[in-house]
Amino acid sequence: MAQRTTLQEFETVFPKLEEALLEHAKTYNIPLEALNWYKKSLEVNTVGGKCNRGMSVPDSASLLLGRPLTEEEYFKAATLGWLTELLQAFFLVSDDIMDSSITRRGKPCWYRQEGVGMIAINDAFMLESSIYSLLKKYFRDHPCYVNFLELFHEVTFQTEIGQLCDLITAPEDNVNLNNFSMEKYRFIVIYKTAYYSFYLPVALALYMLNIATPQNLKQAEDILIPLGEYFQVQDDYLDNFGLPEHIGKIGTDIMDNKCSWLVNQALTIVTPEQRRVLEENYGRKDKDKEAAVKKLYDELKLEQRYKDYEEKVVGEIRGMIAKVDESQGLKKGVFEAFLDKIYKRSK
Amino acid sequence: MAQRTTLQEFETVFPKLEEALLEHAKTYNIPLEALNWYKKSLEVNTVGGKCNRGMSVPDSASLLLGRPLTEEEYFKAATLGWLTELLQAFFLVSDDIMDSSITRRGKPCWYRQEGVGMIAINDAFMLESSIYSLLKKYFRDHPCYVNFLELFHEVTFQTEIGQLCDLITAPEDNVNLNNFSMEKYRFIVIYKTAYYSFYLPVALALYMLNIATPQNLKQAEDILIPLGEYFQVQDDYLDNFGLPEHIGKIGTDIMDNKCSWLVNQALTIVTPEQRRVLEENYGRKDKDKEAAVKKLYDELKLEQRYKDYEEKVVGEIRGMIAKVDESQGLKKGVFEAFLDKIYKRSK
Ligand SMILES: [Mg+2]
Ligand SMILES: [Mg+2]
Ligand SMILES: [Mg+2]
Ligand SMILES: [Mg+2]
Ligand SMILES: [Mg+2]
Ligand SMILES: [Mg+2]
Repeated sequence: MAQRTTLQEFETVFPKLEEALLEHAKTYNIPLEALNWYKKSLEVNTVGGKCNRGMSVPDSASLLLGRPLTEEEYFKAATLGWLTELLQAFFLVSDDIMDSSITRRGKPCWYRQEGVGMIAINDAFMLESSIYSLLKKYFRDHPCYVNFLELFHEVTFQTEIGQLCDLITAPEDNVNLNNFSMEKYRFIVIYKTAYYSFYLPVALALYMLNIATPQNLKQAEDILIPLGEYFQVQDDYLDNFGLPEHIGKIGTDIMDNKCSWLVNQALTIVTPEQRRVLEENYGRKDKDKEAAVKKLYDELKLEQRYKDYEEKVVGEIRGMIAKVDESQGLKKGVFEAFLDKIYKRSK
Repeated sequence: MAQRTTLQEFETVFPKLEEALLEHAKTYNIPLEALNWYKKSLEVNTVGGKCNRGMSVPDSASLLLGRPLTEEEYFKAATLGWLTELLQAFFLVSDDIMDSSITRRGKPCWYRQEGVGMIAINDAFMLESSIYSLLKKYFRDHPCYVNFLELFHEVTFQTEIGQLCDLITAPEDNVNLNNFSMEKYRFIVIYKTAYYSFYLPVALALYMLNIATPQNLKQAEDILIPLGEYFQVQDDYLDNFGLPEHIGKIGTDIMDNKCSWLVNQALTIVTPEQRRVLEENYGRKDKDKEAAVKKLYDELKLEQRYKDYEEKVVGEIRGMIAKVDESQGLKKGVFEAFLDKIYKRSK
């Protein structure tokens, strides 16, 4: 039987990785102030999240093996999990600057912390570099070392083109609904989120166990990308229709001119008059204008539209999972575990 | 006989690499606006410099082989050269944001160009990712593929820790000369500049020709790092003592609170009264205060001090070059070529 990891267990691995990273920096005789800065950036930016992405590497590995991981296997899988968290930290630190965000995980964004400012850009780079230091230290002798390197390079680039498309499609200071379309929405969501959040952890587990055959990778991608898309659609839905006490924040997608599933759905069904309501009220930092958009979303029955979408897409995903060929070591349970965590979540 | 490349010849290779990068992005069905944005960022940020770093890869390869490169060898070496230019582009785009710089190569910095702003951060990431796309396309079958990947990772991290130390030692808005020291100066210069500008191109040529033995790499590092340090000291010297018509700009290191060789040398020899002059005038955006520092530099005879340093360090480097063991295919000529380009330059 497989075994699920806990956040507490997963977090016990981090200090060892941090130690390895600081030791690596020390080999260059880095001045103490710079070493301490790196240490603080690692701790503040990498630790403290929910670690769903990171924990899904050991969870997937255990499901693939059909048994609990040995201590050594757990350490390797959790290390790969922390690499996905480092990749996310690299993206979040820089995304917060690009989005002029104020808080992250209930604290000021890193670039807004005392004395940091634009040095955060270089800190983001160092978080990314940390991935490759750790891969070299712990996986250099793994038969899939080159595959690990290439996988991180590719997923990094995929996330960057998703970000680029997001940034030029929905600039906060220039509302233009003509930029939006369901096609662009899907591209942004798949590249900006789905590859690194869903495909990457499973691909890492497959490589770690030496069962990353082309067929297994392809099956994983074919299921996890739609699953990641569904996850983001849900995120956009909850931003407007979720309960703040569940999602832990008050949604701001409408005021932030976000290229959200809701506005893109609305655009496909609005009358010309309703479109004018959107044109005049979307993406403005104004509570009344936001309320006008929310009212339109209700008129357009977007809540029901989301629920219909959810049933349809979950049905399709279940259908794909049922057809998974397990002959090369892939397991349906890996995908079922992801789906169970996501389906009808309220937070 | 070896043959030196020209900027024109080197630049003819770029369009092929750009094409390969755009083709790679197209495999993801990237929307056209995003593709065009990537293309523009590649062209504006990578092309148009002097390409000294990039051209030194084919030049070193030709010197190592003792003959002109074949067309295929030239393409490979120039590609590796363009990868060093991409790495530099990644660093310059972000450095300009972190330094609030206004112009780069006579044009507004990328982040200050129309509509770009903080999207430049993601553009910098994509320049870095381009290195790995091209390595995969052109070097995946090279016996040193993993070494190329690890070399870029390591040099990237070295440059980042140099940048970090520079950023926290000499913040533009907080002048504190106690932060400066020759020790920190050397760390910053070696890591921020010498590794990627001097060591990287030669190491790439050695790997390309399959003669990157530990001894050859070590000899290259032992000579090229002091050479790179000398180059940066010269840069700092020229910022104050060079002729604007030669160096193509008016130096601003004093007003910018730069951790320059000159101020660090001054700090080692000032009287308490002279130190007060530095404390009160260094790092201020004020022409009169800058003039007071310049006058102090003259009193301290820093020009002569630089000339003495130059003779001493060049003597040491020549001594090391003379002792190079060429038995594993390394050639003294590689280092002589670098030194000849640098010694007593006025621009
Ligand atoms: Mg954001
Ligand atoms: Mg964003
Ligand atoms: Mg959201
Ligand atoms: Mg700068
Ligand atoms: Mg700088
Ligand atoms: Mg300079």
